[in-house]
This record gives sequence, structure tokens and C-alpha cells, in this order.
Amino acid sequence: MNKNTKVNASILIIGNEILSGRTQDINTSTLAVWLNSIGVKVAEVRVIPDIENIIIDTLNKLRTTYDYVFTSGGIGPTHDDITAESVSKAFGLKYEIHKEAFKILESYYKKGEFNEGRQKMVWMPENANLILNPTSGAPGFSVENVFCLPGVPSILKSMLGGLTNSIVGGKPILSLTISLRTVESEIANSLTRVQNDNKDVEIGSYPFFKAGKLGVSIVIRSEDQSKIDVCNSQILEFVNKKKIQIVERL
Amino acid sequence: MNKNTKVNASILIIGNEILSGRTQDINTSTLAVWLNSIGVKVAEVRVIPDIENIIIDTLNKLRTTYDYVFTSGGIGPTHDDITAESVSKAFGLKYEIHKEAFKILESYYKKGEFNEGRQKMVWMPENANLILNPTSGAPGFSVENVFCLPGVPSILKSMLGGLTNSIVGGKPILSLTISLRTVESEIANSLTRVQNDNKDVEIGSYPFFKAGKLGVSIVIRSEDQSKIDVCNSQILEFVNKKKIQIVERL
Repeated sequence: MNKNTKVNASILIIGNEILSGRTQDINTSTLAVWLNSIGVKVAEVRVIPDIENIIIDTLNKLRTTYDYVFTSGGIGPTHDDITAESVSKAFGLKYEIHKEAFKILESYYKKGEFNEGRQKMVWMPENANLILNPTSGAPGFSVENVFCLPGVPSILKSMLGGLTNSIVGGKPILSLTISLRTVESEIANSLTRVQNDNKDVEIGSYPFFKAGKLGVSIVIRSEDQSKIDVCNSQILEFVNKKKIQIVERL
Repeated sequence: MNKNTKVNASILIIGNEILSGRTQDINTSTLAVWLNSIGVKVAEVRVIPDIENIIIDTLNKLRTTYDYVFTSGGIGPTHDDITAESVSKAFGLKYEIHKEAFKILESYYKKGEFNEGRQKMVWMPENANLILNPTSGAPGFSVENVFCLPGVPSILKSMLGGLTNSIVGGKPILSLTISLRTVESEIANSLTRVQNDNKDVEIGSYPFFKAGKLGVSIVIRSEDQSKIDVCNSQILEFVNKKKIQIVERL
């Protein structure tokens, strides 16, 4: 892939705790922001339960549809952590002890603490590439275009830096947010015209309530700064004409 | 559906702002907690962009797979709000002005304020059922088993109470959380045995860090309180034997 190609990814959150509402997913936005910064656009997110055949089917669909798949969750030591075994089955690979991961955890834990439960975390698809974990030892892994990360947000986040070189992105996706003291219906028609004039730019409109006041954030996204600039000028033109206050532009 | 049937749902979050990481989705957990309380289990969540053919295809897949589908986002007045039109196409229904919704918004806004932008919000699939909006006027709508709600979390939340009677759930899903001062690897084997003894109960294990201390929350979920009680006793048995401190049980 070269820097002119558009590169996309999907995120697969594996975990009953998200589906039950007990835990709020924050890994999607962490992954999406990081992926944008290296030129990868998140095209789809799915959240699925800890059920083997669902993980296998969903993963096989996503990995053949998108350039990359990032999974989160299910790589710990307990019975409900079935991501590594499911990924092995999805790829038709052996599920076995990863020697390098074994060494890493053997030296990470104090003598006698690398018990059977923890040893489960070194079982992976054969020949998986490790994703190092600077927070808590147990590595993630990747197979082809699938990258498997833990569900705990702070640990997931700490592992992304080491991954950047493994991902070949396109041009970074740039964005500009213009926040206005107005309501959506005031600017809807004008904004539609800007979008129609700039069909290959992504323009979103998002109402907000801040400190008791209503506003709208217009978000312009493109790989091409000059296209963002064109939209920006067209938006500022109608904003000035309508005498709408600009709260923030960044 | 009677109260012994298991009832499931999927959540479809429509919005580029979630995929870009700009906005963190919190509607999934709001919807899931509410659905659990009325006996509906969330089986899958998808987040997709504001692109018509993707909305149509995904919706047609989900509405034929699950008992209910709840969509969030894309029903406002701007160009990127294309949920109502896409849902119309998915069902092969006309996309037209909903007379009752028109009346609601006509009387909600001051004279002269029900402008063209706002009028876009009363275009819906023909014969859609309205979902009333106590926060900001503009109603959501449902067609068959698909319920379309806004993306703004506070507005979405305010609309659920009025929806409860439209959903026929199964038995409410009950849960018990036992939080322990331990690490997952200490209890992994014992917990696996409890899960194997109680295959139709959902048992999850989630590490947490609170006030600088590590812990694990075990979450037991079932429609049947007596089955939760059995798991609870079996877990307390190994917890006591291992002299693990119980932080909280609720």
C-alpha cells in the first residue's frame, strides 16, 4: 500500500460486559483516534459476545472485508477469555504455547507466580506476532491483518505505540471543527450546499449543550488540507452573512 | 412472545463521529441497561457511517436476525441525517411528511420558527409510529421491529420511558457482581469449574484497578435468581477457602 491509497479498518469489541451495558466501551475512540493519526479510517465497529462461533464468523467476515481488524477483549486468563483460541480456529491455525510469550511472562513474574492461570495467556495461534505490553506483561498478538488487544483500556492504550510500525496507513485524515452558537436548523440548508459543492469531503454536523447553551459543531474531514480549507471558507461565508457567533475553531 | 421466551435485540449506531473517535458512544450502555431491565438481551452492536447503502444493508440484516433493532443517530435536520430516508428504503416504504409529527413540531416551535430545516425532521417512512421526545420536540419513530432514536444521549435517554410499553420482553435479566481483592489468574481454574457446573449461566470475570489496588469483578447473569444463587455459593466457597477478601457484592 502506498501513501495515496485509502486504508480502512474495523474494530471488533469482544465482551459480554459491553453488551450488558455494565461497561462503557472507550477502546473504540482510543483506537479510532490513533488509527486516524496514521492514516487508517475506521469503517465499522462491531460488539459481540464471548461466544466462539460468533467470534469466528464475525472475524472471518471482517478480515476479508477491511484492510485491518483490531480486536479488543478476551485475552486474559479466565474461562471467558476465548479470543486467542477463536482466532486460531478462524485462520485454521494450531492453538499452542507461544515460546517467546512464555519467556516474556516467565521473566515478568516472580518465581512461582507464573501459574497455570497465567500460562493460559501464552496460548496463541501458531506463529503469531507478539504485540508487546509495557503495562502488565501479557502480550497481544497479530495474525496477518488481525491485531488482538486486551479489553482493559489503559493496557490497550499503552500497547498502541509499539504497533505503529506494523500498520501501513494512507495519508493521515485531517479534520477541522468549527463550533457555532446556533442550532442545526439555522444552518442546515447552507451546509447542504457546502457538502454538495465538496462531495469528497466528509462534513458532519453535531449539536452540543455546553454550560447551558446550545451550539453546533461542524466537523470537516479529509486527507487533503486544501479541500478542508475550501469548505472552511464556504462555511465562514454563510456564518458571517447570518451573523452567527463562532465559539471555537480547531 | 411470552415471558418465558428469550428476547434479543441489536443496537445500530449510525454516525461518522463515533467511527472517527471524536465522540464516545454512550448510548449503547444506556440502551443495554434499559433493555435488560425489560427482559431484552443485546446480542450485537454495530457502528456504521452515514452512508445510505450501508445503513440499508445493515438494517435489513439486523432486523431479520434479531427480535428488535434500536438505531441511534441521523434523525436531525442536517444533510448528514439520512436515517429516516434509509429506513424507508430498507422497508420499501414511501418517505413522506408524517402529519402527526408535523403537528407536534408546529406547536412546539414559536410561530415562524418551524422552518425548512426543522421540517426535514417530520419526513419519515409512511405510517411510522412516533416515539415521543419530551426533551426537544422532534419525535423518533418505529417501523415494525425497528426503533429509531436520536444520537444526542440526553435526548435518547429521555425517550425510553415512553417506549417501554411498545417492547415485549422476556424475563428480566438478573445479575450479581462479586468484587474480589485478587487477580484473575488466582481464581481462573476455580471459576472455570463453576462455569462448567452451570453452563446456562453467563459468568464473566473483569479485572479492575480502583484507588491504586487491583481486583476482579465476577459478574453472574441469568433470568433465574436460583441459578445465580447456586453460582454465588460455589464462588463464595472457593473465595473463602483461598482467603480472598470480598470488596463488594451487589
